[in-house]
Amino acid sequence: MRTVRMLGEAGLIDRLRRGLHRPSSVLVGIGDDAAVLAPTGSMRLLFASDMVVEGVHFRRGRTPAPWIGWKALAVNVSDIAAMGGWPRWAVVSLGLPASTPVRFIDGLYAGLERCAQRFGVALVGGDTVRAPQVVIDVAIVGTVSAAHLTLRSGARVGDALFVTGRLGGSYRSGRHARFMPRLREAHLLLQRVPVRAMMDVSDGLASDLWQMSRASRVRLRIDAQRVPVHPSAKTLEHALMDGEDFELLFAVRSRDAARVPRRLGRCPVTRIGSAIGRGIGVELAGRSGRITPLVHRGFKHF
Amino acid sequence: MRTVRMLGEAGLIDRLRRGLHRPSSVLVGIGDDAAVLAPTGSMRLLFASDMVVEGVHFRRGRTPAPWIGWKALAVNVSDIAAMGGWPRWAVVSLGLPASTPVRFIDGLYAGLERCAQRFGVALVGGDTVRAPQVVIDVAIVGTVSAAHLTLRSGARVGDALFVTGRLGGSYRSGRHARFMPRLREAHLLLQRVPVRAMMDVSDGLASDLWQMSRASRVRLRIDAQRVPVHPSAKTLEHALMDGEDFELLFAVRSRDAARVPRRLGRCPVTRIGSAIGRGIGVELAGRSGRITPLVHRGFKHF
Repeated sequence: MRTVRMLGEAGLIDRLRRGLHRPSSVLVGIGDDAAVLAPTGSMRLLFASDMVVEGVHFRRGRTPAPWIGWKALAVNVSDIAAMGGWPRWAVVSLGLPASTPVRFIDGLYAGLERCAQRFGVALVGGDTVRAPQVVIDVAIVGTVSAAHLTLRSGARVGDALFVTGRLGGSYRSGRHARFMPRLREAHLLLQRVPVRAMMDVSDGLASDLWQMSRASRVRLRIDAQRVPVHPSAKTLEHALMDGEDFELLFAVRSRDAARVPRRLGRCPVTRIGSAIGRGIGVELAGRSGRITPLVHRGFKHF
Repeated sequence: MRTVRMLGEAGLIDRLRRGLHRPSSVLVGIGDDAAVLAPTGSMRLLFASDMVVEGVHFRRGRTPAPWIGWKALAVNVSDIAAMGGWPRWAVVSLGLPASTPVRFIDGLYAGLERCAQRFGVALVGGDTVRAPQVVIDVAIVGTVSAAHLTLRSGARVGDALFVTGRLGGSYRSGRHARFMPRLREAHLLLQRVPVRAMMDVSDGLASDLWQMSRASRVRLRIDAQRVPVHPSAKTLEHALMDGEDFELLFAVRSRDAARVPRRLGRCPVTRIGSAIGRGIGVELAGRSGRITPLVHRGFKHF
């Protein structure tokens, strides 16, 4: 079996470059000290990164290499979508054991490039280094118009809260690596209605609601019966806590709530609650009308 | 001893945010799905990343945490400098064992921020995840004017080759983590003389000369006696092969060679050779006038 050790660093980089598309905004791609990019006019830039580690975010052998590559970029596309922007360019830093099969790398890059093409991203550079296990860190730069920029801090008292898709069971079902970032859905939404606050659901709805509450300084109340539970999740508990859903959580003015479509493309959109007052807190209204504080315990890294 | 496990992810991120400066070009910094940046006018963007792995690039206990942080950003600043640009914004992805002492993280970030302030970079986001050992990946975005953009592919037959500083012994002497990226020197140079090609010396002069040769498609001849050997390197062999120097290697038209200053600030500049013909190759002219092919065997990752 051919391994990374047999390719060497230069051979590895040559291999990674092959098959990558290069739009005209990329003046210089992989191979120099840095990529050279031509941004468009007065747009603002979005800049984010996400690291994926073997044994923590995926297991080799369990998740096929192309899906690991897809996921490594898709989580970044999801971040840009949640800001109301367009993903444009990405750099990929790859830590690899020397014994990594070349086939694994080829699969990884096939998945990265498939995701890149699907969402209009150019892979323009990065780094390859030796590491005790596979580590993939993707940094992404996107553009956004000031009119469409949606922060998680923009929710206000009275706003209606929505979520796309269905939540929970993502890791167990394997969806966590194969998911579709809600880029198209975000822009369909932004064309239809002014969005006050938006973020992606990555740590679990409960945890991400707390983040929106803290950033916007509003108390949020969620209607337990309305939370869209994914078939693979089965229980509300999983829908609230599992994470890795990469759906959009967003807030609109209450008077705009009726203008939010029930579907964006084929993706369902569900109203799950409201911002009920100033302060920081998230509560769950149960079937009986009983209200309990929503404790978050999403995926804990440490 | 307090560890990352005791802080938790939110506690860790709060801690990392503290003490970071935020220039006016950063509209939204750490805490949302992505940072929001305001680029200036018609500049082009530079985008690069470099990953630093415990046990490969540094050993905890041997290299103090602030120097690990300094290095993780400085290698990226060096990339931007070698392109003729200005480093502006960086995101930091951090993989950490849960048992990592908080003191180590504080030191790491103190070093990152010291380097950031020294070179005008804003740390605007990133990711923190669990990993079996410390992994730091910094992605950087810089700006560059079209007039100052210096690729490694611009050298032409007849050009004179120069290098800043002195080479070799960087890892052994500990300089590899404490080095000063040649940002100021690059811009002092660009103000004085048109530079045709430039790159930073990271893999070792021999290896990097081969890269410039391949990118520019010119054969390079180096005068062995002129290669500036660092006192900690002792031999020409080390100066050519060690790497991690982060000096600038650049080419100017032969008629401009006399305009290249002998010092940029306090940093010596040495003419080491020329581009002698078309094709790909690097050769070394020895004391006796004997010419031998320069084989490169810089640091091998795999």
